[in-house]
Amino acid sequence: MGTSGVKLLGILPSPFVNRVVLALKIKSVEYELVEVNPHEKSGILVEANPVQKKIPILIHGDKPVCESLIIVQYIDEVWNEGPSLLPSDPYDRAMALFWADYIDGKWYESFKKLRGSEGEARKVVLDEISEGLVFLEKAFADCSKGKPFFGGENVGYLDIALGSIVGWIKVSETLIGVKIFDEEKLPLLVGWVDKMYSDSSVKDVMLNPQTLLEFYKKLQLATNPEAAAAE
Amino acid sequence: MGTSGVKLLGILPSPFVNRVVLALKIKSVEYELVEVNPHEKSGILVEANPVQKKIPILIHGDKPVCESLIIVQYIDEVWNEGPSLLPSDPYDRAMALFWADYIDGKWYESFKKLRGSEGEARKVVLDEISEGLVFLEKAFADCSKGKPFFGGENVGYLDIALGSIVGWIKVSETLIGVKIFDEEKLPLLVGWVDKMYSDSSVKDVMLNPQTLLEFYKKLQLATNPEAAAAE
Repeated sequence: MGTSGVKLLGILPSPFVNRVVLALKIKSVEYELVEVNPHEKSGILVEANPVQKKIPILIHGDKPVCESLIIVQYIDEVWNEGPSLLPSDPYDRAMALFWADYIDGKWYESFKKLRGSEGEARKVVLDEISEGLVFLEKAFADCSKGKPFFGGENVGYLDIALGSIVGWIKVSETLIGVKIFDEEKLPLLVGWVDKMYSDSSVKDVMLNPQTLLEFYKKLQLATNPEAAAAE
Repeated sequence: MGTSGVKLLGILPSPFVNRVVLALKIKSVEYELVEVNPHEKSGILVEANPVQKKIPILIHGDKPVCESLIIVQYIDEVWNEGPSLLPSDPYDRAMALFWADYIDGKWYESFKKLRGSEGEARKVVLDEISEGLVFLEKAFADCSKGKPFFGGENVGYLDIALGSIVGWIKVSETLIGVKIFDEEKLPLLVGWVDKMYSDSSVKDVMLNPQTLLEFYKKLQLATNPEAAAAE
């Protein structure tokens, strides 16, 4: 399949767009990136996703598919000759879907609040984030069954779901000066992060914390110059 | 499979538990209902779902599966000799997943606010609910392709996702005195609701609005006697 059939709408620093990039890389699918500003609710964004007006959107042929995790599952089913992203066993699939839903729901809600919080409120948010990662440490043990990834021998659906956010967690660690990936509490996840950044199937498209930090600072400067100067 | 292998934890008036009931009925799976009070965060609820502490939980053998839509998908994959709940085509599957996600996310968030709202705020909420149903009316046209259900000839995943909530929408119509299922705006959905309540595969387990209304009034009396007396 040439690039003409597959377009990805979004911007690369978005963790949700990164999920699609990771899945397409693993499946060796060529595509055209169409840069779409997620804050401008107009044009192709509204045309392709009138309900949510959100990125990422995958356009395959002339059909748009929306929601990052649904796109990952779609890619897994359409390009099914490559390595599988979702486990084939129904129970293992249910577990992968459950934990991905947990990451995007309760856990990400806490993570989103981190940079905007201060003092005691920030402490509460950090506790929620940390408690969530302890759940995910246990999920890693259950899902990986002693192998390197949530998906087993290869990077899979849940590796993509959490791996796409790791770069932004590292940015928050830098900006706030806290250790979120604590090796004492999360030995398996810390080891897994290293594997995600060194595995040949995804290392080239994992979000680089340094690049994200520069992107974040530019964005701050554009939208909130005073706060940016204070950092 | 006898009932010994399958347990459903929850209470029947819950729309999310009803999804599992609908899926098990379609697949002719026998099961044991274990009544679990969702407000008491203890015992088997916390043991089987320590992360969310929520119903429904399906216990198959000794393995718990959580999150209503993930359970429905699990049932579809395990008892795969019955009629399929999710479409087999990847794009149609992605659409079914997308709309179910929309129902549980943005749309249900509005619906939850309805009974607690008043005056101008209620009007805003009603507009959101109505706008969402107009999207779902269009989704019905796209997904059903002229057939009786979102799933085509048979009740499927998306029929279950929305069908489980219909009884509670009707309760809200009665309590608040508004028409949510407006035949002028939503002719396809209004027709679909009738089919859900008359189709032999699910009619016996669709939530009955009258039963729900009595359940709701008893609950109000127990938790908020003054408000109950005023209704």
